[in-house]
Amino acid sequence: MLTCEDNELLTRVSAGTPMGELMRRFWIPAVLETEVAEPDGSPVRVRLLGEDLIAFRSTDGAVGLFDSNCPHRRAPLFFARNEECGLRCVYHGWKFDVSGQCVDMPTEPDNAIFMKKVRIKSYPTRVRGGVVWAYMGPPDHMPELPEFEWACLPERQRYVVKRRQQSNWAQAIEGGLDSAHISFLHRHTESQLKAGQSANGGAAPFMRGTDAVVTDRGPMYEVENRPYGLQMGARRNSGPDHYYWRISHFLMPFYSLFPPGGSPEYAAKAPYNGHAFVPIDDENTWTWSFGASPHREYSAEERSLMSGHDGFWGPIDGNFMPLLNRHNDYLIDRKQQKFGDFTGIRGVANQDAAVQEGMGAICDRTKEHLGASDRGIVMFRRTIMRAARELADGTEPKAAQSGRAYGVRSVSVILPRSAPLETVSTQSAHSGELAG
Amino acid sequence: MLTCEDNELLTRVSAGTPMGELMRRFWIPAVLETEVAEPDGSPVRVRLLGEDLIAFRSTDGAVGLFDSNCPHRRAPLFFARNEECGLRCVYHGWKFDVSGQCVDMPTEPDNAIFMKKVRIKSYPTRVRGGVVWAYMGPPDHMPELPEFEWACLPERQRYVVKRRQQSNWAQAIEGGLDSAHISFLHRHTESQLKAGQSANGGAAPFMRGTDAVVTDRGPMYEVENRPYGLQMGARRNSGPDHYYWRISHFLMPFYSLFPPGGSPEYAAKAPYNGHAFVPIDDENTWTWSFGASPHREYSAEERSLMSGHDGFWGPIDGNFMPLLNRHNDYLIDRKQQKFGDFTGIRGVANQDAAVQEGMGAICDRTKEHLGASDRGIVMFRRTIMRAARELADGTEPKAAQSGRAYGVRSVSVILPRSAPLETVSTQSAHSGELAG
Amino acid sequence: MLTCEDNELLTRVSAGTPMGELMRRFWIPAVLETEVAEPDGSPVRVRLLGEDLIAFRSTDGAVGLFDSNCPHRRAPLFFARNEECGLRCVYHGWKFDVSGQCVDMPTEPDNAIFMKKVRIKSYPTRVRGGVVWAYMGPPDHMPELPEFEWACLPERQRYVVKRRQQSNWAQAIEGGLDSAHISFLHRHTESQLKAGQSANGGAAPFMRGTDAVVTDRGPMYEVENRPYGLQMGARRNSGPDHYYWRISHFLMPFYSLFPPGGSPEYAAKAPYNGHAFVPIDDENTWTWSFGASPHREYSAEERSLMSGHDGFWGPIDGNFMPLLNRHNDYLIDRKQQKFGDFTGIRGVANQDAAVQEGMGAICDRTKEHLGASDRGIVMFRRTIMRAARELADGTEPKAAQSGRAYGVRSVSVILPRSAPLETVSTQSAHSGELAG
Repeated sequence: MLTCEDNELLTRVSAGTPMGELMRRFWIPAVLETEVAEPDGSPVRVRLLGEDLIAFRSTDGAVGLFDSNCPHRRAPLFFARNEECGLRCVYHGWKFDVSGQCVDMPTEPDNAIFMKKVRIKSYPTRVRGGVVWAYMGPPDHMPELPEFEWACLPERQRYVVKRRQQSNWAQAIEGGLDSAHISFLHRHTESQLKAGQSANGGAAPFMRGTDAVVTDRGPMYEVENRPYGLQMGARRNSGPDHYYWRISHFLMPFYSLFPPGGSPEYAAKAPYNGHAFVPIDDENTWTWSFGASPHREYSAEERSLMSGHDGFWGPIDGNFMPLLNRHNDYLIDRKQQKFGDFTGIRGVANQDAAVQEGMGAICDRTKEHLGASDRGIVMFRRTIMRAARELADGTEPKAAQSGRAYGVRSVSVILPRSAPLETVSTQSAHSGELAG
Repeated sequence: MLTCEDNELLTRVSAGTPMGELMRRFWIPAVLETEVAEPDGSPVRVRLLGEDLIAFRSTDGAVGLFDSNCPHRRAPLFFARNEECGLRCVYHGWKFDVSGQCVDMPTEPDNAIFMKKVRIKSYPTRVRGGVVWAYMGPPDHMPELPEFEWACLPERQRYVVKRRQQSNWAQAIEGGLDSAHISFLHRHTESQLKAGQSANGGAAPFMRGTDAVVTDRGPMYEVENRPYGLQMGARRNSGPDHYYWRISHFLMPFYSLFPPGGSPEYAAKAPYNGHAFVPIDDENTWTWSFGASPHREYSAEERSLMSGHDGFWGPIDGNFMPLLNRHNDYLIDRKQQKFGDFTGIRGVANQDAAVQEGMGAICDRTKEHLGASDRGIVMFRRTIMRAARELADGTEPKAAQSGRAYGVRSVSVILPRSAPLETVSTQSAHSGELAG
Repeated sequence: MLTCEDNELLTRVSAGTPMGELMRRFWIPAVLETEVAEPDGSPVRVRLLGEDLIAFRSTDGAVGLFDSNCPHRRAPLFFARNEECGLRCVYHGWKFDVSGQCVDMPTEPDNAIFMKKVRIKSYPTRVRGGVVWAYMGPPDHMPELPEFEWACLPERQRYVVKRRQQSNWAQAIEGGLDSAHISFLHRHTESQLKAGQSANGGAAPFMRGTDAVVTDRGPMYEVENRPYGLQMGARRNSGPDHYYWRISHFLMPFYSLFPPGGSPEYAAKAPYNGHAFVPIDDENTWTWSFGASPHREYSAEERSLMSGHDGFWGPIDGNFMPLLNRHNDYLIDRKQQKFGDFTGIRGVANQDAAVQEGMGAICDRTKEHLGASDRGIVMFRRTIMRAARELADGTEPKAAQSGRAYGVRSVSVILPRSAPLETVSTQSAHSGELAG
C-alpha cells in the first residue's frame, strides 16, 4: 500500500507535478506515424500528460506538435489549414511553422517585430519505428531517443499498436510489470490446455505459458537496478530441479518489456514484446504494444493474430477505443467464465483492461495488501517515485541519458536451481552488447 | 424550511455523516432475492449509502455483500469467479468466503499467516420477504430484523418491487409521508370520477380516494411518537359530522406505510402498502414498494396492475430504471393534462418521481414555505435529525431495538367528529398486539 | 490578454457577480414570442444568467417568467398547469399569477394571510419585435426597453432567430465585434469569387464583401464612445485613394450591429443586421441574430436564405441546437477546405461557432497575443468591465437609460482617404435623428 500522498505523487502527471515533470524528461510516443501520414494533411488532436495538442505533418514531411489553440485569440487549431510549411489558423490567418514561429500575420501587415515575437507552444518530434515521438521538457535537457529494438528494426520485423485505456497510467503499467497475474487472469483452463488452445482462442503464441506458469502460481522476484530502470526476474519452480525464469524490464518512465512464453525452443526464436503506458491525463492512458522480431519477418498470420479485429490486442474503433470496454463490461460471458476459461472475457488486452479500469480512474492504493509476489510492483514504485522526488530536488534522471540502454531484451529461460540468475546475461539488441 | 446546515444533515448519507451513521444502525433492503437467485451465480453490483458493493449467492445459499474491489490490488470483484463457497478475484486468484475472510491466496503459497490477516470488507445479510437485507453498521449494535407484515407473509400474499429514483432520499420519503399531495398530484379529475376511473387508468384500487380526499384538500395532522418512529393521522372533513382519517406511519430510518383508499368496505379487506426509500448515494435512491395482503392472496390481475408493464409502479428496464423519467419529461401529455387528468403523467410512481426529481438532485429546503398541511413532513425531519444528532452524541437509536414494532398497519377510517383519534387502536400484524 | 482576475470579471454572470449584476440592469431577450405563443399553453424552460426559469403565456396573454421551482416545497413548475390566469403547481395545487403572487393555496384553506405572503420569484416581461424580453434586476432600476430598429418594424420587415452556443458569452460577442476575421474565417476563396459565390454557397447577400475585405486584411480601428456603448469604425484600403469603412456598434451589455457588405448600391438598400449574445450560464450562450429591413419587406427567398434549413444561420433542432456542432466537428470537409473554401465548414454561423466554441467553455485570455486589429475587442472589454466595476461601486450604467439610443444603424461606406470618419453621421432608425 501507499500513503495517500505517495499515491498522488505516483499518479498525477500534469505539468508542474513531480511525476509529470519526470516524464517530460523523456521522449514520449505521441501518435502513430500513420495518423499523420500525409504532408499537408488534416491536423490530429493529441492529448498527452494533460495537455491538449495538435499534430500535423508539414509540407516538407516534418511533424509539428503544437498547443491546441492559437496564441492570438485562442481559436482551435484543429480546424486550421495545413499549408505551405505551416499551420494557418482559420480565425485570422496567422500562420506558424513547425518550430512554432509565427511566419505570417496578415491582420498586422506592418508589424514584423510583433510577428517575430509570437510563437506557439511547440514540442520537438522525431519519427522512429512507425511512431512520432515528442519531447515536452526543457530544451537543454533533451535526452537521446530510446533505441528500443522494435523501433530500430525494419517495418516488416516490428509491429506497433495502441489502444485507449480509461484509467490512470500507473495501474496500467503495474499490470504490465506483474508476472504473477498471468497464472490467473490470462491462464489456460484445463480444457483449453487439453484442446491445445491459448487463453485467447489461439491468438497469441507469445502468451503460451510453460507448465511452470500453471503449476507454480506464486513467483519469487529478484529485482535489480539497471541504467534504464529495473530488471525483474520472476522465478517459478519447473520440475524438481529447475527454475523457470521470466525476466521482464521496467524502463523509465513508463515502458515494460516482457518475455515470450512457450517452450524454450519457441521462445529462443520468438519476437520480443513490450508496452508503453503513456498518460493522456491523470485518468486516461494510451496503452501501446510493441513487438520486435529480430530473427525473421512477421508472418501475415501473426500480424492478424495480434492487431486484427479478433487479434490479441483486441478490436478497437477509429479512435483507438476498444470495442470491449467498461461501458459494456467487456462483454463478459458468464457461462464461458464458469465452464470455459478463467475470466469469460475475450482477449488478453481486454482482460487486463477489465481489472485495471475496474480499480477506478485512479486506484486507491491506501487500501492494498501486498505480498511477496508483488515485489516487482513495489520496486517499480520506489524507483519511479525516487526519480520524481530527485528531479524535484534538482537531480536529472540518469535513465534519460542513454538511448542505447533501451535496446535490452526480455527473455525467459529454464535454469538449474543451483544456477544464479546472473549466469543469464541480459541481452541487448545492439551489436552483441551486454546492457547494464 | 431548513437552514443550509440542517439540509446537509438531513440529506448526506456517506459513511461518517450523522445521517449515514444513523442509517447504518438499521437493516437495509439491499437487493431483491431474485437478483442473486442462483448459488454460484454472477456477482451483482450494489451501491448503498455511497458505498460500491458486490452481492453474490454462495454455493451453500448464503448471500455475501462485499466491498466492490479486492483488498489485494483493488481489482473489481464484479468480474470475480463465484465458486466453491467463495468469490475468487480473477486478477491473482485470491478467494474470500461469505464472511469476508481470505481463504485462498495462491500467489503467496507459503504465507498462511498473511492470508489469515487479509479480510475483505463484508456486511452481514439476511433474506426475508423476498429481500436481501444488509447491516452496514458496527457489529455490536446489530439490531433486530424489522418484522414488516409484508416481509412475514407467504410469497403469494406479498409483493415487492423497486425502481431507481434520481434524487436524494429525503425528498422521496417526504413525498411518501405527504397526505396532502394525493388530493392533487394523484387526484381524480371530474371526468375520470364520472367514468369511474382512477387517476391511473384504473390500475390502482388502493389509490381510489373517498370523496373526502377530493372535497377537503387541506388535511389537518395529528402526529404522535411511536417506538418505530411516528404515527401521522391526516384528518379531512367527510360530510358535516364526520372526519375521514388516513393514518400513515414513518418508520425509522426511511420507511413509510400508507393506508388503502376507497370505501370503508374496500379498505377493511384491502392490502396494506408501504415504501422504503434507500439511499444509493446522496443523489440517487432505491424506491421500494411493498404490499401485504393478510386476508387473502393477491390475484393475478392485482399483480399485473401493480408491477407489470402498465402497472401502478410503472414500467422499468432491466436495471430498474423507469422508462418514464426525467430525461424524457416522464412523457408528459400536455393535452391529457389540459383536458383529461391533473398532471398528464401516467402512473402514480411516475407522478411522484416527476415532482421529486424535479426538485434537483438535493432539494434546496432553504427556499421552502411550509404550511399547516406540511406538519407531517416537519415532524419527520425533526424526528430523524434528532436521532442522527443523538447518535453522533453517543445515544443509540431506540427504533432499531424492536423488530416486532415494525409490524404496524396503516389504516383509514371514518369517525364522528367528536371521537378522538385514540379510539382507533393502531393495528399490528403480529398476533393481535397493539403496537405503540 | 487579460489577467486571470479580469477574465473572471468579464465572463462570470451569475447573480452577485459584477458582470451578472450589470447585465441584470438591462432588458434581456428571454424567449421567442412563438415559444409561448398560446395562452394557457405549456410552460417552457428558460435558463438565463445561470438561473433556471419557467416562461408561460397566461390566459390574458401576459407572459410570466418564474423561478423554475414552487416556493412551497420546490416542485418543478415545468409540469405545472397553466390555467385561468396563473400557473398551478401539480404537487399541492398552489397557484401563482403572472406577477408571482400566490392566489390559491388549497392545502391551507383557512390561512389567507399566509397565502398573501407567499410569492414566487418572478421577473417582469415585455413583448416586442417577436421577442419576450425580461428584466431580472432591481425594480427601481428598470430601464427603458431598447428600441432596436428590427424590434420596432412590422413582422414582415424583420427577422429573429436564435441558436445555442456551447461557450461563454464573451468569446461569442468578441467574434461578433471583430471585423478582421471576416477576411479569413468567412472569406471568399478565389475560386468562389470567380464563380460569383459567397463563402456560404450563395446564401448570405449581406456577407458579400467588397474587394477591400479581400485585399486589405489588416483593418485599422477608430473606436468612439456612444451612449449605448461603442461605435467601431474598421478602415480598409479601397484602391489608392479611398477607404472602405465598416461601422459596427457594440451596444451594452451584449449586442452587436454590423453593416451589410456588398457594393455601395446594394448596401444602401440592404437590411441591417445584428446579434445578441445572451448568457445561458457561464458556459453556454443564446446567439440571437436579428435583421431589420426598413426599406422594404423581406422576400421569401431572403427568409429561406437566412433561417431555413440550409440558411445562413445554420440548421438547428427543436431545442435550437445547431446540427453542425462541436460534437461532430461541424462536419468539417477537409477536401473542401483544401481545394474549395477557407474552412471546409458550411455556414457563417457554424464557422463562428467552430472557432469560438473551440476556445473552450471559457476562453483563457491570459494566453492571448493581441495586435492592432484587435483594438475593437480591447475597447469592448474595457467598456464593459469598467461599467461592471462602476456598478459594483454604486454607479448605475448610463446605457440603460435610453431605449431610443438603441435605434442606431450599422453602415458601410467608401470615402476618400482625406475625409474623416465624422463626416459619416451615425444613422438612427428613429425619425431621422442622429444617435450619439
